[in-house]
Amino acid sequence: MTTPRALDGVTVEIYDTTLRDGAQQEGMNLTVADKLIIAPLLDELGVGVIEGGWPGAIPKDTEFFGLVDKEIEFEHATFAAFGSTRKPGARAHDDVQVRALLDSAADVVTLVAKSDIRHVERALRTTGEENLAMIADTVAYLVGEGRRVIVDAEHFFDGYRFDPAYALSALETAFAAGASDVVLCDTNGGMLPDWVHEIVSAVRLRSDGALGIHAHNDSGCAVANSIAAVLAGARQVQGCINGYGERTGNADLLTIVANLELKLGATCLPEGRLAEATRIAHAVSEVTNIPPYGRQPYIGASAFAHKAGLHASAIRVDPDLYQHIDPTLVGNDMRMLVSEMAGRASVELKGRELGIDLTGRPEVLGRVVDRVKNAEAAGYTYDAADASFALMLREELDGQRPTYFRVQSWRASVAYSEKVGGDGESEATVKVHAGGQRFVRTGEGNGPVNALDHALRLGLCEVYPEIEAFDLVDFRVRLLDTSHGTDAVTRVLIQTTDGERVWSTVGVGPNILEASYEALVDALVFGLMQAGIEPR
Amino acid sequence: MTTPRALDGVTVEIYDTTLRDGAQQEGMNLTVADKLIIAPLLDELGVGVIEGGWPGAIPKDTEFFGLVDKEIEFEHATFAAFGSTRKPGARAHDDVQVRALLDSAADVVTLVAKSDIRHVERALRTTGEENLAMIADTVAYLVGEGRRVIVDAEHFFDGYRFDPAYALSALETAFAAGASDVVLCDTNGGMLPDWVHEIVSAVRLRSDGALGIHAHNDSGCAVANSIAAVLAGARQVQGCINGYGERTGNADLLTIVANLELKLGATCLPEGRLAEATRIAHAVSEVTNIPPYGRQPYIGASAFAHKAGLHASAIRVDPDLYQHIDPTLVGNDMRMLVSEMAGRASVELKGRELGIDLTGRPEVLGRVVDRVKNAEAAGYTYDAADASFALMLREELDGQRPTYFRVQSWRASVAYSEKVGGDGESEATVKVHAGGQRFVRTGEGNGPVNALDHALRLGLCEVYPEIEAFDLVDFRVRLLDTSHGTDAVTRVLIQTTDGERVWSTVGVGPNILEASYEALVDALVFGLMQAGIEPR
Repeated sequence: MTTPRALDGVTVEIYDTTLRDGAQQEGMNLTVADKLIIAPLLDELGVGVIEGGWPGAIPKDTEFFGLVDKEIEFEHATFAAFGSTRKPGARAHDDVQVRALLDSAADVVTLVAKSDIRHVERALRTTGEENLAMIADTVAYLVGEGRRVIVDAEHFFDGYRFDPAYALSALETAFAAGASDVVLCDTNGGMLPDWVHEIVSAVRLRSDGALGIHAHNDSGCAVANSIAAVLAGARQVQGCINGYGERTGNADLLTIVANLELKLGATCLPEGRLAEATRIAHAVSEVTNIPPYGRQPYIGASAFAHKAGLHASAIRVDPDLYQHIDPTLVGNDMRMLVSEMAGRASVELKGRELGIDLTGRPEVLGRVVDRVKNAEAAGYTYDAADASFALMLREELDGQRPTYFRVQSWRASVAYSEKVGGDGESEATVKVHAGGQRFVRTGEGNGPVNALDHALRLGLCEVYPEIEAFDLVDFRVRLLDTSHGTDAVTRVLIQTTDGERVWSTVGVGPNILEASYEALVDALVFGLMQAGIEPR
Repeated sequence: MTTPRALDGVTVEIYDTTLRDGAQQEGMNLTVADKLIIAPLLDELGVGVIEGGWPGAIPKDTEFFGLVDKEIEFEHATFAAFGSTRKPGARAHDDVQVRALLDSAADVVTLVAKSDIRHVERALRTTGEENLAMIADTVAYLVGEGRRVIVDAEHFFDGYRFDPAYALSALETAFAAGASDVVLCDTNGGMLPDWVHEIVSAVRLRSDGALGIHAHNDSGCAVANSIAAVLAGARQVQGCINGYGERTGNADLLTIVANLELKLGATCLPEGRLAEATRIAHAVSEVTNIPPYGRQPYIGASAFAHKAGLHASAIRVDPDLYQHIDPTLVGNDMRMLVSEMAGRASVELKGRELGIDLTGRPEVLGRVVDRVKNAEAAGYTYDAADASFALMLREELDGQRPTYFRVQSWRASVAYSEKVGGDGESEATVKVHAGGQRFVRTGEGNGPVNALDHALRLGLCEVYPEIEAFDLVDFRVRLLDTSHGTDAVTRVLIQTTDGERVWSTVGVGPNILEASYEALVDALVFGLMQAGIEPR
């Protein structure tokens, strides 16, 4: 489209606070080593500012700042230290915490300052006047030392709604003392887009200074609030990769960037970087060890996944009718989910996605469609089990599923006795043929599936030591048709990794053990096949 | 605050499509039994309309519609069937799919209709004119048969941006034929709030008909888009519990409702229902078996969880400074106060509900609160296990849990052999003392849990023949903390019936068998106790 867009020609500075505010997320605990991996990824993405932490206040952050200086050369980003205005009743010059910000040698210092009079009086326990003096003194001191100083006006929106004059005086004080930007923070995350738009617009009428937005997602509107602020004139957006952060998270930076660039015409990242978004966001989640959220806009694994059914052929012919943007613009991809309504078109697309070309093989397509239908009627699901689907495709293609081993028998049990007490004992015995030998191995575990997994690996790793690197990372059980009580069919979905890739397999059986067994075997076979191992 | 709010006095109809559009989510596969559990939960929440599926097109949905009629009496909700306008070139009257909608006996029929001329021509492959005829004919026919007809105008926003005149003609045709509401759908989910506001406002200038909004979250703005539409005059919101849905999900209904009611003053649910939101959303996720998202606004486990650090004491003294709403308004809790059940008041209320009077027993209340906290930390959940909760209450009250039997030991196993083929063999042996005797019994089953259930019953029914009437009607397995693979803790929820009443029990253990054993024993004990049987 050549229609003019609301932000054509506008540049928005992207300020990443993953390493500081994002790390406040429940269950996240970034080490210095983690931060040293994440910071270059953020730079590669092309954000304008990377906030590294709070040197002087948090020892880990002090150490990190020391190492960044020596070990990382940023290509694009400037590096920011986060800290607070000086203590009440002292001088910035004498404040240990403020000095530590200078000592960090970061080019940018971001100061959190209070702008809600209630927080000044009830949390900081000082006067409105002293708070303004703290802002003026600390900003002027750091600016005098040659730093770019950004002021994060904490609780600005709540403060403005309660007492606009005081909130504005905090902002004006910061600008007067030399702050380059004042960032309006929705610290509690409760704003709605109209409110943000109204308040940012009102502030713009009073001040020419550069404004930023820092939103949290407590009302589910962090992305929309950030965009509303930019449309009202803010030119810096703070947020986190993957929307990390305390409570419901900070604003999801990549969703905002994608909206601003692709839909509104703004410039946020250097040319070509947005196409790296999916890869980089997933790489960051490898480091944080927080599983990527499949439904995340733009970069989630499901973001362009269609359970197409009836529409598969229309999607193939005319994908733009069914997606809001071209997924390659953010480095993602359209995926067809194979489901009950699987048609030939979606199986063919899926095959292509898995690197298996089925064009001109209508008889294979026909057989696969039939197998999928029968399998799904029996309880299988392939939309979350790509590896099992790929194995089935290869089998139908020309018996390409390799035979690495043969399981003669297995047995798994749990025993509990009140005499022993505590947990029961789980064990499993597997008799397996591989590499011309027969292995009988017994595994233990904290449950029968775990014991069976151990026994299988014990039996196979003498012939295929490669499987020692395989790690089971996710295990899901589902009872289908629960109206039959314990007689229901059980479906198990497993995710396995070799440290680099993750693959998913499915098993169905009359009980959890038989279903798990099937999924475990598929996981081993697919892992070996993917690694290019020949049957021994 | 007494400031007037933008939607004071406005009523918004909440239309839930979890069972239809939500079920399109990757990895979700709802059975008829699942739907029969979810629908009453939605009714309990107080939504205005529950869309059950597409009868006639999907066999599972046809079955579900048949059962709903017999088995569920909705207190608040009206029940809707989803379907499509008739085929091109035929009469609605003769269209099998349209007739199936009538046959479903749902009070509301929601018709999806095309309003984007590109979709009409390229996906539907008919003319704009014929599409309008299809809308007019189908709506008029169903209205003539006494149904309330809602028209979901698919791809409306994209269509309007491309060709506003055609999109409007689809809408006007639907109203002219008698549709009660036209719901503007952002089917591809790419809209931004300002665009939605502008388009809904433009439509309002052309039409007096009742409008609704149906948003998807592809730009991360589904909540904000829905609110923008309501602020522009829409009076129905479609969405899903937990934001379920294809790709990035449908609009998250509870976040929208909470924003509309708590922040903007609208009325969406009957008085008092919003406070049930957290419990109901989590109960639904027990059924879908999709783990709740901790960072979900309002109802997520982390939504009001503070990694307090510096502010811990300030938060405790003055929580309102640090949270955007009082979390009890949505049935959630600030995390420092621990679990949802663990207030004395709620335990007392729950006791009363179960017929156990705890007034004037503060020491019992205190002990129960502590036990609930510890148990929930270990993985138990009592929301869906009233019988286990009642047994615990009785135990704490004065050791009132009766001792009907004592299990000395049990063992369960599954064995598979390729020589035998087919399914594996499951069996369990139980040694149990009851009525002064010791029974050693072996049960078989189609899985180890089933075999254990049989063995327990065989051992006990000579002393307690009453348990022969007990029937296991629902069995659910949930792995908690799936990041540990097969090492995760397992939770089992069981429903048992004696033909008249249904009761629910919970068990937690290192594996499915130990968890099931605990829930099975609770189920037998509660069933005997409830029937007034004395220990023999």
